Formats: sequence, C-alpha cells, structure tokens
Amino acid sequence: MDRVPLEKKVLSENDRIAAALRARFHAHGILCLNLISSPGAGKTTLLEQTLARFGRDERVAILTGDVQTDNDARRLARFGFPVRQITTGGACHLDARMVERALAEWRLDDLDLLLIENVGNLVCPASYDLGEAAKIVVLSVAEGDDKPLKYPAIFFRAELLILSKTDLLPHVPFDMAAARDNSRRVHPEIEVLELSATSGAGMETWLDWLEARRHPTPAAAPAPVATSTKSAP
Amino acid sequence: MDRVPLEKKVLSENDRIAAALRARFHAHGILCLNLISSPGAGKTTLLEQTLARFGRDERVAILTGDVQTDNDARRLARFGFPVRQITTGGACHLDARMVERALAEWRLDDLDLLLIENVGNLVCPASYDLGEAAKIVVLSVAEGDDKPLKYPAIFFRAELLILSKTDLLPHVPFDMAAARDNSRRVHPEIEVLELSATSGAGMETWLDWLEARRHPTPAAAPAPVATSTKSAP
Repeated sequence: MDRVPLEKKVLSENDRIAAALRARFHAHGILCLNLISSPGAGKTTLLEQTLARFGRDERVAILTGDVQTDNDARRLARFGFPVRQITTGGACHLDARMVERALAEWRLDDLDLLLIENVGNLVCPASYDLGEAAKIVVLSVAEGDDKPLKYPAIFFRAELLILSKTDLLPHVPFDMAAARDNSRRVHPEIEVLELSATSGAGMETWLDWLEARRHPTPAAAPAPVATSTKSAP
Repeated sequence: MDRVPLEKKVLSENDRIAAALRARFHAHGILCLNLISSPGAGKTTLLEQTLARFGRDERVAILTGDVQTDNDARRLARFGFPVRQITTGGACHLDARMVERALAEWRLDDLDLLLIENVGNLVCPASYDLGEAAKIVVLSVAEGDDKPLKYPAIFFRAELLILSKTDLLPHVPFDMAAARDNSRRVHPEIEVLELSATSGAGMETWLDWLEARRHPTPAAAPAPVATSTKSAP
C-alpha cells in the first residue's frame, strides 16, 4: 500500500487553499482562530459564554464542525451573531475547503473575528491548516494531565492551551502543575489559561487574551509566521 | 483528488488481516474486545480496576494504543498480566496489522481474553476492524449526553456502551436518560452500562457482562456476525 504520497498530495492541496484563506483573512483584517479539543472538552460552552459577553456590535462569526448534527450551531445562533455548521459526514477533522465553502455567502468586510470550532478530536485536526492565525487547544481537567504527552502534535502546534472545566478540579485526579509542565515539554512557548465557562472563573483572562490577540501592540505582535506550518515533533 | 479508492484499498487490506486475526482468536478460544472512546474517558482506569478484580489465574492480556508514550502499558503492567503498548506515532487509530504484530511474541494458547484499548478518538477507530468479537464504546459523563448523535458511527458499531465516571454526575450537566435515548436512536440494540471505575459503582455489572460474554449460554449466544462488518448509518 502506498498511502503517504496521496496524504502528502491531500495536505498540499489543503495548504494551498489554507494559504489563500489566510491571505483573505489578512486582507480583511480578520483574526481567525481554530479551536481543537477532544469531544466534550467544552468548546461550545466556551464559545457560548464568550458570545454572551460580547457587545451586539462585535463583528464576530462562528463556524462549528461536527461529524453529524447541527446542535452546536443551534446553541450558538441564540446570541445573534452569524453562525454556520459544517457537518463533515464522517471526516474526523475540518479542512480548508470546507471553511472556504462555508464562508462563501458571508461578506468578510463585515467581520474582524472568525472563531472555528473544529470536530472533537485531539489527533486529526492538528494536521490541517484552515488558514487560521492560531490554533487553540482546549483540554478539560476531566481528561487528565497526561494528554499533552500522549497527543503531542496539537499541543506543539497550538499557540494557546485552555485548561477547561476547572470547576471539576475538586472531583477529578488532575494535577494542574503537571498539565502545564507536560504541555511545555512538548511546546515550551505555549501559553496556558485556566477557566470554567460554567462558573465563569477565568473567562476575563480569556477575553483579555482574545482582545490582545485581536489588537496587538507593536511590541507584543507575534512574528508573521503561521504556527500551523511548523513540523510536528 | 481521488481519495476514496485508496481508502477502500486500505480498509480492505485491513479487513483481510482482521479476518485472519478473528479466525485465530476463534481457533484459540479467545474473546477479543476493542475499547474505544475520546481521550480521557477512563478506558485505562476501567482496565486497571478490571485487572485488579481478576484472579491471578485469569488468562487475560492487554494491548493498549496511544499516539505517543507507553504510560498506559506501564500503568497496566502492575497487575502482572501480559501487556503490550502499541504506539502509533501519529496515526489516529489502531489497525489490524498493528495488532497482528503486537501479538507475534505471545502464545495465544495461554490466553482466553484479549482486551484492546484503542487510541483515544471517537471517530477514526470506528472504521477499523481489529478482529475483535465486539467493539465497546466508553463515554464519560463529563463529555455530554449528546455525543452518540454527533459521533454515530462508533455507537452504531459498538455492542456495548459504558457510561463512565458516574461519580461526576452531581457536578456535570449530563442527562442519563437522554444519553441512553440518543445511543438507542443510533443503535436500538446497543447494551448500556453505567459505572465509576474510581468509586467502584457498577464494576460488578461490567464484570458480569464480561463473564457472560466470555462464557455465553447457548440461548444467550450472539449470532456469529461480526458487528464491525455492519455499515455505518
């Protein structure tokens, strides 16, 4: 079986579309973030609580991916911002073409923030550039502090790690220091936030991070290198 | 891009090896079970607590899959039964060839139960037959009761759904009746157990299920059709 060449071809086709998307986002002044986690780590609840804290004049839109159902789009549409569901029908990740198609009917001039909720999967989405400025990995404390070592590619490629569901900390065997240490063994520069979208603890820090990423000061601006072009360890 | 034909070829090669494994397991009187879940749903803890309750004379062995690390094999080896780690190095699922290779140094005559812990992923492992008698899907109550609808393939193909981490039920928004209902909408005949490997609640029911599956009475024996050969909905 000769699988690698075709995988390379698929990825390079994806990279081509992702590069075009990245150029469009840049031209329109849109910050695009790609949220990746296991199923049930709390991406949708985090997005709900983020949108709930936004003013009505925020120029934000959401793409939300799932293998099946449009449950997440229906949950997120309640907040009045543009939301579109991408149902992959079996695929274990979003790809750049799915994002390109989902954007077709939106005027990008109306946006300055695009939040993409990927399919719940800690493996496959790490390999697919969607044209985002940064990948964000969300790890629920219910999942265990060893996950950065077991699934290193996404922790290596993400700019930010959000440790979610911290309200469960009293009830689960999760060592916060070990989680931070394990993620930094894989990716020494990764930023780490802790929050509970349910209790609201840590939400302000996340909103501050988002605001700083949307409007970086010149000194704090990141180098113009897409994190997703790095090779996995 | 012409991706489907190669995927079909890969799967049919996998199915060929899986069929050979299934024949070997049958010839040696081995029950092989393939445990599948999201990362951090508690497969390893369930296996630990299962092995802890087994007598020393149990003829059981474990294969445990991860993208990286042999942490799980080390955790499971403490119980004195044969354990082997399969590190996929990036792949999002185990395949039949990995299982075939991992078994090469074991005498199958010494076993009558083989438990395979798949890579933490609710999507990709559903498509790969490992020669198992049954797939078992483990869903932690921390992940949410909507997951059977979002990731239907694995719930359709699994014979048993284990709802794990029930000790967290007071602390998470999980509706047990909705989870059961959602899983049965995808797969009306799926069996469902609830347990907490941490508290021990429900472990006896799981061990009873395992015992009945290992030594079925003639009336209770399942039809000799591999569940993994069914098509996804």
